[in-house]
Amino acid sequence: MNYDILIENGLLITMDPDFTIIEKGCVLIKDGRIEACGKTGQFSGVTAKHHINAAQKIIMPGLINCHTHMPMAMFRGLADDLPLDVWLNDHIFPAEARQVNPDSVETWSCHAITEMLLAGTTTCCDGYFHEEYVAKAVLASGIRAVAGQGVIDFPAPGVPDPGKNIHTAVEFVKQFKNVSNLLTPSIFCHSPYTCCAQTLKAGKKAARELDVLFQIHVAETRNEMNLVQERGEKSIVQYLDDLGVLDEKTLIVHAVWIDEKDIEIIQNSGACVVHCPESNMKLASGIAPIPKLIDAGVPVGLGTDGVASNNDHDLFSEMDMAAKLHKVALLDPCVMDAKTCLKMATIQGARAIGLDQITGSIEKGKRADIILVDMDKPHMTPMYDPCSSLVYSAKSTDVSWVLVDGKIRVANSKII
Amino acid sequence: MNYDILIENGLLITMDPDFTIIEKGCVLIKDGRIEACGKTGQFSGVTAKHHINAAQKIIMPGLINCHTHMPMAMFRGLADDLPLDVWLNDHIFPAEARQVNPDSVETWSCHAITEMLLAGTTTCCDGYFHEEYVAKAVLASGIRAVAGQGVIDFPAPGVPDPGKNIHTAVEFVKQFKNVSNLLTPSIFCHSPYTCCAQTLKAGKKAARELDVLFQIHVAETRNEMNLVQERGEKSIVQYLDDLGVLDEKTLIVHAVWIDEKDIEIIQNSGACVVHCPESNMKLASGIAPIPKLIDAGVPVGLGTDGVASNNDHDLFSEMDMAAKLHKVALLDPCVMDAKTCLKMATIQGARAIGLDQITGSIEKGKRADIILVDMDKPHMTPMYDPCSSLVYSAKSTDVSWVLVDGKIRVANSKII
Repeated sequence: MNYDILIENGLLITMDPDFTIIEKGCVLIKDGRIEACGKTGQFSGVTAKHHINAAQKIIMPGLINCHTHMPMAMFRGLADDLPLDVWLNDHIFPAEARQVNPDSVETWSCHAITEMLLAGTTTCCDGYFHEEYVAKAVLASGIRAVAGQGVIDFPAPGVPDPGKNIHTAVEFVKQFKNVSNLLTPSIFCHSPYTCCAQTLKAGKKAARELDVLFQIHVAETRNEMNLVQERGEKSIVQYLDDLGVLDEKTLIVHAVWIDEKDIEIIQNSGACVVHCPESNMKLASGIAPIPKLIDAGVPVGLGTDGVASNNDHDLFSEMDMAAKLHKVALLDPCVMDAKTCLKMATIQGARAIGLDQITGSIEKGKRADIILVDMDKPHMTPMYDPCSSLVYSAKSTDVSWVLVDGKIRVANSKII
Repeated sequence: MNYDILIENGLLITMDPDFTIIEKGCVLIKDGRIEACGKTGQFSGVTAKHHINAAQKIIMPGLINCHTHMPMAMFRGLADDLPLDVWLNDHIFPAEARQVNPDSVETWSCHAITEMLLAGTTTCCDGYFHEEYVAKAVLASGIRAVAGQGVIDFPAPGVPDPGKNIHTAVEFVKQFKNVSNLLTPSIFCHSPYTCCAQTLKAGKKAARELDVLFQIHVAETRNEMNLVQERGEKSIVQYLDDLGVLDEKTLIVHAVWIDEKDIEIIQNSGACVVHCPESNMKLASGIAPIPKLIDAGVPVGLGTDGVASNNDHDLFSEMDMAAKLHKVALLDPCVMDAKTCLKMATIQGARAIGLDQITGSIEKGKRADIILVDMDKPHMTPMYDPCSSLVYSAKSTDVSWVLVDGKIRVANSKII
């Protein structure tokens, strides 16, 4: 059979359910789809238009960034080391009012995508305003993305009348549904403190009718928890569950200030969680109980958040940070081991955003979202355990090849 | 005047006491010494054998890694995500017994130095056994280093008879004192739980007589604190102070399990501290009260520790981790701001290891330990504040030029 691309001679980490790792592995790709993977030389009579020699490289699924606000790349490092309210009210909100428009949203989304592709991210899950211009950037660049139009009960960029916030989101979803295999539209209700109960219910109802992912920031800060409790609610998660907005197609972002009961509610609802350790640390939001969520069986992905609060789109450092943060927080070096972090950044992330049928692992039938990571660097030598090396030693700049949907987007560490 | 090297057109972050930053800055170097720095074009009639165009680059002092065990590069990723005692007793100690010898120490020290130079580290402060072979690697490679011969009350590689541990360290110092401007020998008593009171006193006495730095791991783990308290001591720091081993030439490594009283003792003694956030996190040792130490005026540097517990020699990620760790631990986004982290990785680190008269900042009269950091990368754009960009966005792979003692060691991101 004649294939489009044959990747061979690499250390193949499939991230399949058995965590199969194949030395001198190969992957066969046709029409953007993974047709087979195994040992190099295992498939006889194979020809391919394009051979990629992955000797001295790890072949693995592209990373999944489950929480981005891509246009906010324009605010990278705008104001750091400040109290959250000063950062938001005196810097980010005024800058957004001044600088966010369709042009800037598209330009900086392209910039963020370039950064992500170079760093080995093949899928991201975004939420912002003017999201149709984020979608344009996604379609132009060839990254895979879930794109969520923001919903908030205040005037927002592109949505001056909050009365039209749900309508705008619905129109966005309709405009981009089934336009491209790479783009999945979504609705992003900003948070329980910026959207009233009616908005949250309407947003989730629309998402259900359109069968798309419903994203929401939940329990990010202690203040938010206090606010909701002052309103007489038991907890933010309980409140959302009572509103009926938690189910398998709800993506809970952050989940920092939650307790055992909340974890049980999330688990029973089927909702998924995104962990953004670097953002939570830099903004001093707190430490999410991620090991407990994972133990409860909740699918947890990793996200960078917008780079105004990070300040980069780098899932390699996010994996490293997640592993180390929870170890020191729990004084237990065994929690959040390398394999758990790799799963969060790949297959569990795909599951959290509803794309695990098509990406997140290297398995026959999935789309070919694949990266190659160089092993021949001083900081990657020696290598006793490739999972350990990927989480604790690798840098995003070790990524030298990136394929999305079977198309080569980065070759020899350069965007092509 | 004719200079050896002129670095020009860069964004010059001097790390001098005024935190002077100069746009389109230049640095003039002769005989390994910084002769002048200022605005490009400011010095008339200047010629130089070698011009380095730093346009689109930050010019800054080389980073100072205040705590390494370079030969342990051979154990990078050997055994991760394990309880500390299992990691040490079942993996690291047996591997050391099997693999540590003069050849492996020299080989893997060279490897670690290559990794560090490429990542913008121009000075490190090391401690291990067979340290004369670490010294050989330092002299061959051209990094600047403080090298400490390890002292421990058990048989150790190269020191089978613990009765000779101090003698061996003293001979090491005598052998390498005044051999090279790049190498400063030192004595490293491993810890208060592996060296008895007599060894600690003898080690410090020898270090005083030889006028060299005395290094020691202190209060790294809760177990260590418990052990010392079970012996009836008030605290580890109090114990060391009572022994008389704390002074301006004592380098306290880790200082995780210390309290307010200990901070006062350290402050009064003049001793300095090394913070190793990634190692402390990965081994789940705990969170050192670094903001309090800095507030008390204690000089604090940054260290990676050996890469078996990190797993790399990357001070850029160490700065980022330090900033984020303390923000989230104290739920205060204002602590450990970018400038504080930059100081720890440069001038305060130099001070901690006793080399601030010759390195750690770009000032007239200091040795030319300088790095250039590329700004023209997606993750470094936009740049509102270069300090913020260096701590929160830069990767060690953005370092493209490295000079140690006025010699170019890395050019265009390649070791030369």
